[in-house]
Amino acid sequence: MTTVTTARGAATPDEHRDPGKPHALEHITVVDFTRVLAGPTCTRMLADAGARVIKIERPGTGDDTRQMGPFASDGTSEYYRFANLGKESIALNLKDPGDLRLTKAMIAKADVVVENFRPGVMAKLGLDPAELVQENPRLIVCSISGFGQYGPLHLQAAYDTVIQAISGIMDSTGEPDGDPTRVGTSISDILGGVFGYCGIVTALAARERTGKGTTIDVAMLDATFSTMEQGLMDALGVHRRPHRIGNRHPSMTPFDTFRCADQLIAICAGNDHLFGILADTLGKPELATDPRFATNVDRTNHQADLKGAMEAVLRTDTAAAWHERLEEAGVPASPILNVDDTRRLEHIKVRGMVKDVGGFQVPGNPIKFGAYNSLGTMIPSPELNNRGDALRAEFAAAANPGTPDGGATRS
Amino acid sequence: MTTVTTARGAATPDEHRDPGKPHALEHITVVDFTRVLAGPTCTRMLADAGARVIKIERPGTGDDTRQMGPFASDGTSEYYRFANLGKESIALNLKDPGDLRLTKAMIAKADVVVENFRPGVMAKLGLDPAELVQENPRLIVCSISGFGQYGPLHLQAAYDTVIQAISGIMDSTGEPDGDPTRVGTSISDILGGVFGYCGIVTALAARERTGKGTTIDVAMLDATFSTMEQGLMDALGVHRRPHRIGNRHPSMTPFDTFRCADQLIAICAGNDHLFGILADTLGKPELATDPRFATNVDRTNHQADLKGAMEAVLRTDTAAAWHERLEEAGVPASPILNVDDTRRLEHIKVRGMVKDVGGFQVPGNPIKFGAYNSLGTMIPSPELNNRGDALRAEFAAAANPGTPDGGATRS
Repeated sequence: MTTVTTARGAATPDEHRDPGKPHALEHITVVDFTRVLAGPTCTRMLADAGARVIKIERPGTGDDTRQMGPFASDGTSEYYRFANLGKESIALNLKDPGDLRLTKAMIAKADVVVENFRPGVMAKLGLDPAELVQENPRLIVCSISGFGQYGPLHLQAAYDTVIQAISGIMDSTGEPDGDPTRVGTSISDILGGVFGYCGIVTALAARERTGKGTTIDVAMLDATFSTMEQGLMDALGVHRRPHRIGNRHPSMTPFDTFRCADQLIAICAGNDHLFGILADTLGKPELATDPRFATNVDRTNHQADLKGAMEAVLRTDTAAAWHERLEEAGVPASPILNVDDTRRLEHIKVRGMVKDVGGFQVPGNPIKFGAYNSLGTMIPSPELNNRGDALRAEFAAAANPGTPDGGATRS
Repeated sequence: MTTVTTARGAATPDEHRDPGKPHALEHITVVDFTRVLAGPTCTRMLADAGARVIKIERPGTGDDTRQMGPFASDGTSEYYRFANLGKESIALNLKDPGDLRLTKAMIAKADVVVENFRPGVMAKLGLDPAELVQENPRLIVCSISGFGQYGPLHLQAAYDTVIQAISGIMDSTGEPDGDPTRVGTSISDILGGVFGYCGIVTALAARERTGKGTTIDVAMLDATFSTMEQGLMDALGVHRRPHRIGNRHPSMTPFDTFRCADQLIAICAGNDHLFGILADTLGKPELATDPRFATNVDRTNHQADLKGAMEAVLRTDTAAAWHERLEEAGVPASPILNVDDTRRLEHIKVRGMVKDVGGFQVPGNPIKFGAYNSLGTMIPSPELNNRGDALRAEFAAAANPGTPDGGATRS
């Protein structure tokens, strides 16, 4: 570990920690119908960028994740807490004409609507995305779903594990002779949310030129499929059916995990120069002159032999000891950390990737701007309906113009 | 499989396939210094949104991935082809004063610069990100790197597998009694690129209000860490050290993969209602009334018992047969597809998630707009220097004002 230094000219930690900087999207208001993980990830990113996010929840129970563990000492679901920072909650019954009127009044003043119901549910509620954009031509309505708004599978229920299974990512993960393996985080939910954010902010940038809003349709399946790389190259490009290959890289060697005396270590020597240094560091310079390992292609063709030769040496000491030697020599390597150790890294602290919000720790903001706020929101995830009265008061006049009973209703 | 239908009011496949729609970012010019995967993923997304992307490559060899397999029948690297659609290539020697002048002339007319060198390299080249923004106050300069522009580890070399190892995602993936498992796609590279895109487009939207550009610092480690969900909730929220749990969900049951006669199937019955239907579909209604399995918490506490009871039935038939029954009953389920089967799904075709560009198949665009082009770029990844002469001609006057030898040079 070295001390904290900064690349010349780059923004500093202090600049990224300055709460006084303006937020990039502080002029944007979002009406958020999302629940569980994919949609709330998207709207949390909007809150991190400074948008006002009004989260509409079902009266009584609210977002499903409020009942999902793990629960912290204050009884709050960590699931809920992670995904809903910075939002304002209002409990609304969307089947009640008055609440629907209020909802439409909020949408009329909003820039963005995000929803992750099953396709068709918004239309049944009287909130058809395309109609909303027709009524509010500058509005951006983003629908995030498992399979998208059309296609043979669009009405199928989707959970993260279903999308991981059908997208190919699960089949591509794991040992060749082992089972398909689920990625150990809800990556398809999260990719759906992140690509939803990409679409919304792209549309916000475009709206400044065109004056026009748009619908956006993001499917967790499309998003996950689009990140498939090595296997999909085989399938689409060279017409070879891929099979999972464990922890190694398909075309760079050595680029894998290797067994030391105590545990695995990741070593990535992606070119001949690094391989030479690696061979020296292992005390086996002859590996670099072995014709089986002369070039990257040779090493990939003989990767099992090379792995065996490397592990024969690596098993003589611990992963931590080898990591220290490899780091000093400049060979990219890392022990495999439990996320509980990752979050304690000095590097993660300096980068602000864990932050304290309302007395609880949550992940920090991975997008760091020189000119804008980089902390993300510091407002805790809301109690159910925490801003209900205030929001009803704010939008009551617009929802009920003229008489208390007035205004356009559609049920 | 049903026929293609569309959620009421949603945009249709035809609207998303219309090449005549304007691109969302067609007014944006990007100078792209990126190589390999993380950076090029970001700039490919910019090209998909319609930006003009000028890719600066090293003379002679160009982007490293040009030499990385798998290679298609025309000799092109699929790695390169996937990540560089829609870009214009120019070979420039950034250590040559004339070429550097041309580079700075291009930057002076650009909206966005993206680079994924090691921190400090841009400054050494005379292209310090913060200085570029000072000289061109509307410019957005996004740096994508393994560990970010500062922090104790910022100068360490990072490859995808190193970041997967240190971020916790590898340790969280796999069976409890098995090894940490690399996600079977370069997810940390891709997340670095996607979060870079998020930052750039956020800054573009903000610039319309503030008139100001900004530096952006995105680390693959920060991006990957921020997607860690279940394990990180345990570590940060409830102070419990997480351990990988195979393919099941930590707090919803049954929500896992299960062994059928031939292979695994993913089944996600996330609530009591779905669990009742699942029990009936398996011909084991008694499971739903078994006190061990009465609630989701009960089922999670007895998940091994439940899995055993389910697999005793599931093993009597194939995954395909069970999938058909479960689908008909409305229980979220999916066989685990090889990505070669995923890409052949009618659903993937209808969604345009594989497209033909220049006679080769590549992944489609997962962000579908009603009002803007949703196809993404249809221009093939460029040959090295394919637009070199044209770009030199376009920017020569700005690079050399006055005399052929004029202009400000800094090396």
